[in-house]
Amino acid sequence: MSDSSPPLASAEIIAVGTEMLGPTRLDTNSLFVAGRLAALGIELRAKAVVGDDRRRLADVFKGALSRADLVILTGGLGPTDDDLTREVIAEALGLELREDPAIVAQIEARFARRNLRMPNVNRRQAMVPRGATVLENPRGTAPGLLIEHDRRLVTLLPGPPREMQPMFDDLCQRVLARRGGAFRVHTATLFVTGRGESHVEEIVQPIYSRWTSETPPIETTILAAPGQVELHLSLRADSDTVAAERLRRAHEELRNALGADVFSTDGRAMEEVVGALLRDRGLTIAAAESCTGGLLMSRVTDVAGSSDYVAGGVVVYSNELKTSLAGVPAALIQAHGAVSEPVAAALADGIRARTGASIGLGITGIAGPGGGTPDKPVGTVAIAFSSADFGSRVRTFSLIGGRAQVKFQATQAALDMVRRALT
Amino acid sequence: MSDSSPPLASAEIIAVGTEMLGPTRLDTNSLFVAGRLAALGIELRAKAVVGDDRRRLADVFKGALSRADLVILTGGLGPTDDDLTREVIAEALGLELREDPAIVAQIEARFARRNLRMPNVNRRQAMVPRGATVLENPRGTAPGLLIEHDRRLVTLLPGPPREMQPMFDDLCQRVLARRGGAFRVHTATLFVTGRGESHVEEIVQPIYSRWTSETPPIETTILAAPGQVELHLSLRADSDTVAAERLRRAHEELRNALGADVFSTDGRAMEEVVGALLRDRGLTIAAAESCTGGLLMSRVTDVAGSSDYVAGGVVVYSNELKTSLAGVPAALIQAHGAVSEPVAAALADGIRARTGASIGLGITGIAGPGGGTPDKPVGTVAIAFSSADFGSRVRTFSLIGGRAQVKFQATQAALDMVRRALT
Repeated sequence: MSDSSPPLASAEIIAVGTEMLGPTRLDTNSLFVAGRLAALGIELRAKAVVGDDRRRLADVFKGALSRADLVILTGGLGPTDDDLTREVIAEALGLELREDPAIVAQIEARFARRNLRMPNVNRRQAMVPRGATVLENPRGTAPGLLIEHDRRLVTLLPGPPREMQPMFDDLCQRVLARRGGAFRVHTATLFVTGRGESHVEEIVQPIYSRWTSETPPIETTILAAPGQVELHLSLRADSDTVAAERLRRAHEELRNALGADVFSTDGRAMEEVVGALLRDRGLTIAAAESCTGGLLMSRVTDVAGSSDYVAGGVVVYSNELKTSLAGVPAALIQAHGAVSEPVAAALADGIRARTGASIGLGITGIAGPGGGTPDKPVGTVAIAFSSADFGSRVRTFSLIGGRAQVKFQATQAALDMVRRALT
Repeated sequence: MSDSSPPLASAEIIAVGTEMLGPTRLDTNSLFVAGRLAALGIELRAKAVVGDDRRRLADVFKGALSRADLVILTGGLGPTDDDLTREVIAEALGLELREDPAIVAQIEARFARRNLRMPNVNRRQAMVPRGATVLENPRGTAPGLLIEHDRRLVTLLPGPPREMQPMFDDLCQRVLARRGGAFRVHTATLFVTGRGESHVEEIVQPIYSRWTSETPPIETTILAAPGQVELHLSLRADSDTVAAERLRRAHEELRNALGADVFSTDGRAMEEVVGALLRDRGLTIAAAESCTGGLLMSRVTDVAGSSDYVAGGVVVYSNELKTSLAGVPAALIQAHGAVSEPVAAALADGIRARTGASIGLGITGIAGPGGGTPDKPVGTVAIAFSSADFGSRVRTFSLIGGRAQVKFQATQAALDMVRRALT
């Protein structure tokens, strides 16, 4: 592709797979792609989901190609009979498919590394339309494809997000960045915890409503996500400096209004924010979990390198294990009930003592749907923070939602106690 | 619409709104509509999201109308300038728009109830294409529209789910139910573990490829999901009895071919399947987790009522905690390394002894991205099962993928060991 290639003003996305036409699954790849396109100044104008159906896919693809400079297809590159994207697009563009021996060798090697023989069906994944550029897939067997057609670009990407995302990022960097537009979309995010969506809206609405009439205008989207409220700001501008300065000021206004409830300004999840604080301060953490059942430690250990600051933890559903594994006195449980602030505090102190961690967390509550009482309804969760250097505290939360929501929000609240104590 | 109207075999959905083309929002209305259509025997073949853009919406709509018997549009019926659906569709179908005085009166009354005057912009919402049926909207100002065109149906629904859903349900009941096919969609699922997608495909392809030529044909979709491969069968039939019998036989064929690798035939997740086995047999479970960091116990406790069979667990990242919390002899770790079958077995035995559970699981491995060695690369995970009544076993897995994938697959393999031991 020469540097004189025309800019790509518009794009459409087509996700291929019958499973995304049922009542349970959405195409989420398009969110990732939309974000990247916005940053490149390529306007996403439409997206579609098509089933594994030759005629319909060809028809929808031709429609997209007639409207957009860049057509991005995700999915349908697998080895099975219903994976049709490669063949349908090649045929629609009038391109012959040929087996690429280098790809066959790569797929064979991938299987061989796991001491497996490549099933014959995987040969389909080595078929390449004439003239197409092969996009390597270090995380899976399906390579991607890039086709230049009549001054437009068509790219075929694998469906699994962990394969699609690095491949698309690589494509953005190597090819699309040179062909994007001048008016790029610049974005900023703030993640807030400890307040509901409507309260956040009440605080920030008077601020962001002013921005829409300024030049350039900032668009604000407020999203309620599990355990957090997200503010997404976006701005189209042809000057990176102007955009950065506008967003910096907007950001600052929101932070001033929301204060310490803002826990992330760069898209990092709570467990990453807390992990970085622990690492910076040379601290370690341990938890004794009842109703969250290990989810807290699992989130903390989702972060690469967390073994540097994770001591360990216990999951103690029964009263007996609260005593034997976390050292909570049986008499304390008897006196206050398992779901109580004294027991949460004893769990936090106990796990800290048993693991030698600098910080201990204790969580005990009722995740539901059963187990609630008039005094302690479903969603009641007592959470304690214990440390030698940052003091100790305990608080009872009334969380709403189903079992999974209560579990998640309890771990979010516990991690947020750590964050607030350390900042 | 007379009863002699032809049945609606296929449908497409178009969601209208630029906000659904950004990186944060998806069209979720289509999930609701997809569920209702399947129940009516109307096949959803594609869906699209289009921005508030006259030319593109017209083009995408015409494409959908050329392919489908029923086109459902959601959104873009509001009172503002960027709400274009009504005008674009009327123009595409060659239908004149006229203001409906009855709708104006209704909208005025709606504002009056809140002591407000109707803004003039809301008059747009009273425009009706000639011959269209107005669908009342008790929950908002935008009425819906139903247009019969050339033996096909086009319906325009408001975007907000709480307005769209009751309106669509009403439409299903009054109109679509009579025109849905007699050929309803019947579905069945099998979840498989312990084999990759390509290997499952190799086994089942000769079976399901026969079904496509039988009457009625069964469509099979194979999906790779984390830790499992899913087979989704669907069948359009006019007789519930015939469909059930066909699917029962298909199901049986797949089960015979895949044997014990099939772990779920009713959509239940692995933790639900294992939970039910434990409950039925009156057993309890505990786990000592290293690289999975609590995810195993968190998954087990995601199931409502799991406190009946969950004893508890420990998360032991460090060697010291493997010894102090799970009773693994330090000498054993010294001799074999923390990631080894003897240590996994000692974790399983140790946690079973310390919790008094009937079954103990031990997991130790390298989740990555760091920590791998030539001998034990990232993804190496030793998993042990310990019990008095079902014997003990231990196995080393080579799992692929990023940190989260390795964690999840390790918990899936551990739960699967329990399932296989108990069945």
